[in-house]
Amino acid sequence: MPFETLDEIRAFCRDPSHGNAQAAEAAAARQDTLTKPPGSLGRLEELAVWLATWQGRAVPRLDRIKIAVFAGNHGIAARRVSAFPQEVTHQMVANFAAGGAAINQLAKLLGADLHVTPLTLDRPTSDFTRAPAMGEADFLAAVNAGWASVPLACDLLIIGEMGIANTTTAAALCAALLGGGAARWVGRGTGVDDDGLARKRAAIDAGLERHRAQLNDPLAVAAVLGGFELAAMAGAVLAARAQRIPVLLDGFVSTAAILPFAKLNPELLAHCRAGHVSAEAGHRQLLADLRLEPLLDLGMRLGEASGAATAALLLRAAVACHAGMATFAEAGVSDAG
Amino acid sequence: MPFETLDEIRAFCRDPSHGNAQAAEAAAARQDTLTKPPGSLGRLEELAVWLATWQGRAVPRLDRIKIAVFAGNHGIAARRVSAFPQEVTHQMVANFAAGGAAINQLAKLLGADLHVTPLTLDRPTSDFTRAPAMGEADFLAAVNAGWASVPLACDLLIIGEMGIANTTTAAALCAALLGGGAARWVGRGTGVDDDGLARKRAAIDAGLERHRAQLNDPLAVAAVLGGFELAAMAGAVLAARAQRIPVLLDGFVSTAAILPFAKLNPELLAHCRAGHVSAEAGHRQLLADLRLEPLLDLGMRLGEASGAATAALLLRAAVACHAGMATFAEAGVSDAG
Repeated sequence: MPFETLDEIRAFCRDPSHGNAQAAEAAAARQDTLTKPPGSLGRLEELAVWLATWQGRAVPRLDRIKIAVFAGNHGIAARRVSAFPQEVTHQMVANFAAGGAAINQLAKLLGADLHVTPLTLDRPTSDFTRAPAMGEADFLAAVNAGWASVPLACDLLIIGEMGIANTTTAAALCAALLGGGAARWVGRGTGVDDDGLARKRAAIDAGLERHRAQLNDPLAVAAVLGGFELAAMAGAVLAARAQRIPVLLDGFVSTAAILPFAKLNPELLAHCRAGHVSAEAGHRQLLADLRLEPLLDLGMRLGEASGAATAALLLRAAVACHAGMATFAEAGVSDAG
Repeated sequence: MPFETLDEIRAFCRDPSHGNAQAAEAAAARQDTLTKPPGSLGRLEELAVWLATWQGRAVPRLDRIKIAVFAGNHGIAARRVSAFPQEVTHQMVANFAAGGAAINQLAKLLGADLHVTPLTLDRPTSDFTRAPAMGEADFLAAVNAGWASVPLACDLLIIGEMGIANTTTAAALCAALLGGGAARWVGRGTGVDDDGLARKRAAIDAGLERHRAQLNDPLAVAAVLGGFELAAMAGAVLAARAQRIPVLLDGFVSTAAILPFAKLNPELLAHCRAGHVSAEAGHRQLLADLRLEPLLDLGMRLGEASGAATAALLLRAAVACHAGMATFAEAGVSDAG
């Protein structure tokens, strides 16, 4: 158990490990020798240097990519905030195991190891309009489960989730920690109609009202308005930081999951990149608030790490160019005049 | 020789082949049965349907991807419009052959067949401030060379270019055919300084002035202001259309290359998608004018098909999901309530 108290999490977040500045410098220097105008690979250059920084290697590798998907159920689903019934969370976990979901296809294409962790699906969080979603012990257990899921030997971690009603949970976290009211953060999720959207707003407003006394404590917010799979994703991101493993975040829910922790220390996300900006309404604003620039903007809104796994293909492109290109000297190409 | 006169090109462009509507419908219908909320894969869904439309298969394939890179030299380089000397075009062709360029690494990652066609590098086009860049015979020969480079059996064609000074050529085509003057279309290319930028603007203004009488004929513009590798890229795009092969365009130069042809018939680009929007100044505006929505926006500006080859990874993701995912019925997942 890495964390036995919320204070231990706070201490970790305030003083995390740092990247390898020497590897970063060496990677940046290598980029400038390769047979292309300086900077002309755009973000692919930045991504290669970022991977180098966290892997501590001038030439990063992507031999071992881990996709960690966490599944949870939400008491707030009782407020009829989702277009799909709650049993779909369990059914989709079975679909992941059978290899039929989008993330299975993307993991195979990427050559990544997919691991799905269901978190007490038959015991959802509490309906946060009536009680705290999680008590402290359950919250810590979920964070620790996420932490434990990250292997020591890993070149890149991709996180994602499955959980009916969890865009309501994510919007509640954003509204609590970034303000602007429920309306700023609520979207259609898997596809609710206007009435469903109104129910989402009402549920969040009720949750904010009920837990008003705790809204100035980010980790308390993560417990009383959050979800098991969100806490687990955050735990995985913290474990990756401890082990200096670069992370690709997925959509609105995975980004909202780490928000309470980033509120403790914005520098905590230095080892993370946003794989994409999803079509879910609040995601673009959330990324802007966290100063994360998404790699893709393709109108995806599926979750289950699908956007981040797609974006990881760009990291493969970045590493392929960084590692494989000839230098001006090797190729006998004239430099800029 | 597919085209012996400009009129034959005009006739082809005005009445091109069409996609397979039945395959498109079948692909769209399949998307709605897969285990995800409808539309939640965003553009990946649209891309799968687009590939299906042009391949004429409900489940498209990407077994045979061809990357066609054309290289040419430009008389306008004498106006000192590039940061690199003209011999770099030839040196980079050698670098492509040796496997050291960015596109070599990306082709390998993508599992694509890369073919590079140098077009009379020791005989550049004429300086368009003083004469037509190409006569009609040279222009037709370049278009036909591009056409001939497209194999009959191909699931996807990716086009790109190498040519010192060719962002000046591309900007000249845009200014001639879309208006707004040279300043609207000129950018730093491989990295010219402010003086270089001023020389680019002056060269284009001079070219527009010299060839003023022909600016209302798009194919004449493609000859008098264009370049060999641009004409060849256009020829390849036309051949792909004839064979119903979907095409990914690369950056500013490849998009500008097809502009004169698209002016004859905007529907001519239905089999094309824009792989990315480059950092070169005029590209975003050009894409908007052609109603092409780029797949990537990563600040790349290298050319040599590098942006399109990176974007092709997204097509692989689209096809993997489309072909491999389980349906709701197969997976026993409940549909929306």
